[in-house]
Amino acid sequence: MTLPAEMDALLLTGDGYAAPSPSHLEAMEPYVAAGRIGVPSPAATQLLIKVSLASINPSDVMFIKGMYGQPRAQGQPAGFEGVGTVVATGDDPRAQWFAGKRVAFATGLTNWGSWAQYAVAEAAACIPLMDGLRDEDAAAMIVNPLTAIAMFGIVKDDGAKAFILTAGASQLCKLIIGLAKEEGYRPIAIVRRDDQIAPLTALGAAHVLNAEAADYKASLKQVLKDEQPRIFLDAVTGPLATAIFDAMPKRARWIIYGRLDAEPAVLRRPDHLIFMQKSIEGFWLTDWMRRNPEGRKQAVLDAQKRFIDGRWKTDVTAIVPLAEAMRRVPGELAKPNGKVFIKP
Amino acid sequence: MTLPAEMDALLLTGDGYAAPSPSHLEAMEPYVAAGRIGVPSPAATQLLIKVSLASINPSDVMFIKGMYGQPRAQGQPAGFEGVGTVVATGDDPRAQWFAGKRVAFATGLTNWGSWAQYAVAEAAACIPLMDGLRDEDAAAMIVNPLTAIAMFGIVKDDGAKAFILTAGASQLCKLIIGLAKEEGYRPIAIVRRDDQIAPLTALGAAHVLNAEAADYKASLKQVLKDEQPRIFLDAVTGPLATAIFDAMPKRARWIIYGRLDAEPAVLRRPDHLIFMQKSIEGFWLTDWMRRNPEGRKQAVLDAQKRFIDGRWKTDVTAIVPLAEAMRRVPGELAKPNGKVFIKP
Repeated sequence: MTLPAEMDALLLTGDGYAAPSPSHLEAMEPYVAAGRIGVPSPAATQLLIKVSLASINPSDVMFIKGMYGQPRAQGQPAGFEGVGTVVATGDDPRAQWFAGKRVAFATGLTNWGSWAQYAVAEAAACIPLMDGLRDEDAAAMIVNPLTAIAMFGIVKDDGAKAFILTAGASQLCKLIIGLAKEEGYRPIAIVRRDDQIAPLTALGAAHVLNAEAADYKASLKQVLKDEQPRIFLDAVTGPLATAIFDAMPKRARWIIYGRLDAEPAVLRRPDHLIFMQKSIEGFWLTDWMRRNPEGRKQAVLDAQKRFIDGRWKTDVTAIVPLAEAMRRVPGELAKPNGKVFIKP
Repeated sequence: MTLPAEMDALLLTGDGYAAPSPSHLEAMEPYVAAGRIGVPSPAATQLLIKVSLASINPSDVMFIKGMYGQPRAQGQPAGFEGVGTVVATGDDPRAQWFAGKRVAFATGLTNWGSWAQYAVAEAAACIPLMDGLRDEDAAAMIVNPLTAIAMFGIVKDDGAKAFILTAGASQLCKLIIGLAKEEGYRPIAIVRRDDQIAPLTALGAAHVLNAEAADYKASLKQVLKDEQPRIFLDAVTGPLATAIFDAMPKRARWIIYGRLDAEPAVLRRPDHLIFMQKSIEGFWLTDWMRRNPEGRKQAVLDAQKRFIDGRWKTDVTAIVPLAEAMRRVPGELAKPNGKVFIKP
């Protein structure tokens, strides 16, 4: 197969980090630009992938805005995740094994993102795909599904049946709620719209609380009292998360994996850490995979089976052609409840 | 031995909890009153102790002000810790074993404090004392020494040789610094006065940084870079502690055991929890002892030996007669570097 010298891509306009700003994407222009760039060559342990479909995760938005915990490299393509076909590999046998295969991939630390016609990923961050998996599921196969399995594993290890989720209507939380329902756990989902209550309840949430509702504070208190959750999986931080953590019972663990609220959280109750053995920690999939190679392998198989047999399904808001991405992505992302993809 | 019906004591004037206020004791009157109260009777598993000497810990000050994580009971004697002689016991054999013995005691959950002629403590919270131990060491035998041994144990379990201490010139930190020196660890003590630098360095601190110094920020940065500490034992919280935690390297653990600063800590870097695997937790001796009965037993023996052979020594600022306590205690506590005792 002959590769072109150049390709279309959405290129980062910023470098390094930027000060916190709201987590929604108000426009593409300040952060990425449509452009042409040379098709990269994979290093020894890497793969060059012809991208079929690239996903847009909340972490991508945080990253292009300079608010994700990894520095941007100006002029490189954005996009953490996608699905495609391996068209070239490095010399390492672990990379060569993937030649010609259809893979889900995470670009992680390669600086060659998925919002482009071609992407580079470490072979270790690629998953060979089973037949029968839709592109829409495969393109969102790593970040959300593995995070869901890993974080629900934390809930199971902790023991208590009830647990709390902020950003409860996100694709990630829907996956977690599905897992929890199957195993008899009781997710308490915090959302911001009443129309999210019915679908999440149908999926398996034991309680869905609208943080904008007038009776939210009282409902939260009652639910925490009845359910005694211990794990709090938080994508938000800020005052919303602090209030939940402060109201949680003994031995509560606040596990932060995202920061949708730019406002900082204030630790008003250090006495709860001391006398109630509460704690605060983070979750990062990359670190979890590094520390749990076996768990990762299991999760990869489990996630594919769930998508193929229909227990999981990626809700699709839109598949936007790369050429229309600059104009359409912010508007599509603003729609609730589904995922937005870029098609090169 | 005939027991009197009534005794002198310093009695709590407040009930339950109060809003945060500065952690120093500006006066006794708002919080305790000298008074007479009936001599209590020990329950089955408890001891009645004729108090020889009662200590004043930072946790006592927080407690009488209503800022410690346990509720006050109005009209009961204050004081968490002391030394004395057992003059009556409950019917439980574990209590009877202590009859007539000299003990260090912690009043913990009995509501009968040590700032009185007689105190009640659970037998399980009493330590029979070896001969040769001074009253000044025995009266401060539980809270600080066991906390020092337990928290230094966390440092050792974590592995990194360097660790950080706020309120570095406290009696507790001096004990920890002594332990650390013996075993080749490198304590980094944060203080607020230049005259605390030389004595702490002599004790074994690898670095002593004055947080009020003009070059503090730069020194802290350099020391953290050189020493790569992972455990942060914090008695302060607030902005001072947040700035230290934010500057610490990967896998830093912020362990909060006190709250000398009433100003809340602000979590500005949730990304450090996510991407650098930092975490925040609390330490409470009562909980540690409950979970580590073997460790507690070892620590009790170890602490006594250290005081008897001179490796540890309690620095005494003043021994104040109970009758003079209302007038003199705040002034004595304001003096740096030593402990203040009440003598009934």
